[in-house]
Amino acid sequence: MTYCLGIWLPTGLVLASDSRTSAGVDQISTVKKLALFEKPGERVVAILSAGNLATTQAVISMIRQNAGKGGTEGAGGDILAARSLFDVAQTVGAVLREVMRLNRSFVEPYGDPSASFLVGGQIAGDGHRLFQVYSAGNFVEASSRNPFLQLGETKYGKPILDRALTTRSGLDEAAKLALLSFDATIRSNLSVAPPIDLLRYEAGSLIAGQLAKFTAQHPYWADLRERYSDGLSRLVESLPEPRF
Amino acid sequence: MTYCLGIWLPTGLVLASDSRTSAGVDQISTVKKLALFEKPGERVVAILSAGNLATTQAVISMIRQNAGKGGTEGAGGDILAARSLFDVAQTVGAVLREVMRLNRSFVEPYGDPSASFLVGGQIAGDGHRLFQVYSAGNFVEASSRNPFLQLGETKYGKPILDRALTTRSGLDEAAKLALLSFDATIRSNLSVAPPIDLLRYEAGSLIAGQLAKFTAQHPYWADLRERYSDGLSRLVESLPEPRF
Repeated sequence: MTYCLGIWLPTGLVLASDSRTSAGVDQISTVKKLALFEKPGERVVAILSAGNLATTQAVISMIRQNAGKGGTEGAGGDILAARSLFDVAQTVGAVLREVMRLNRSFVEPYGDPSASFLVGGQIAGDGHRLFQVYSAGNFVEASSRNPFLQLGETKYGKPILDRALTTRSGLDEAAKLALLSFDATIRSNLSVAPPIDLLRYEAGSLIAGQLAKFTAQHPYWADLRERYSDGLSRLVESLPEPRF
Repeated sequence: MTYCLGIWLPTGLVLASDSRTSAGVDQISTVKKLALFEKPGERVVAILSAGNLATTQAVISMIRQNAGKGGTEGAGGDILAARSLFDVAQTVGAVLREVMRLNRSFVEPYGDPSASFLVGGQIAGDGHRLFQVYSAGNFVEASSRNPFLQLGETKYGKPILDRALTTRSGLDEAAKLALLSFDATIRSNLSVAPPIDLLRYEAGSLIAGQLAKFTAQHPYWADLRERYSDGLSRLVESLPEPRF
């Protein structure tokens, strides 16, 4: 399993992914699921991956190979030349469909070959945007009514976002909530694990300067988890008790 | 879907169930999923149900019909005569297997006939106990290392329990946490809905005096939800912000 989270706010984006990959509990490893494509001052594109690792790696490798080649059509699209993040999402969907066309029938006897992606960032001339590319290659976009998108093990980490995240939240608050959402997920699902790669992107900056890796021992994240757990226990204790 | 929660603590039990039943989003209704069997001073047995409604109702009806008849064997077991809650769980499993044997092949073309149960309570001479009966009719028991069991839509409501529930929690705190766990689930899954039936059972009392129904408008539950959401927002705000 995997957990990826993208948050769209008027002031920017927070994108985060875990690092666990597994083929059964006796074969686990660590991979980076956040791929970054950047031309400072012109474009920042982050692609977060969930699903079959061979599929997601093939998709990211093909996108990387075509980057800078100037292609515009389908799976050959060049995301460093794309005019909008919508076009980037279309390219990701097209590459995914091509990888699935080549591999699906060979892989299915052994397991699920499908994959899905979050695509977030900004290209000069367009606003900052966030898309979720489904395994079918089609996609939806986040908005102020629907400010976060999730991939993989989505349920454990959703309540804290539903309660505390609004479009008035600042980017730092959203980054805190993202790390708490990952903590809730990691506590409940062994197949989601640190380090967490987290990109904090300020709208209009066109630079991916704020990318951090949070290991389990990272002082900030460890302190955040402890303060949150203590605070939550005190909060629950302070609430009135039911009468029967 | 359904959400049922059973909490075992050294001081007693908290058992709770939602009331939503649905066959698609255009056919929803309200049912009670907590069945109570009681002989004050001698035994309290609560059975919470999840899964196919025809199956769960058939199981509860058969158990009710056999109650007081003195049967001891398999699906004919009398849970008002059972000597232990372990025997009650065996009867529930046996009745479930019988209902499945009679109905499975007819129901499967239309949908999933399976069901599962939580069985909690106490019988004089034995401690208070809590079991989860799987759709196969076998079952596991809660313990101090594993103090809560869940049925149905289990994920959204689990993080708050993982963080705040310990075997040192009091029964009132556990009841609060159960209601917050249901609130988290209801916010995220339309197929879980109030009223919540909640039984607070004090170990050794052998009486089910503390059974309450929490509608969405119930003053205590509405107040609890509001205080918790406000407190959580303030808590998140008070936490230090990440640096990149």
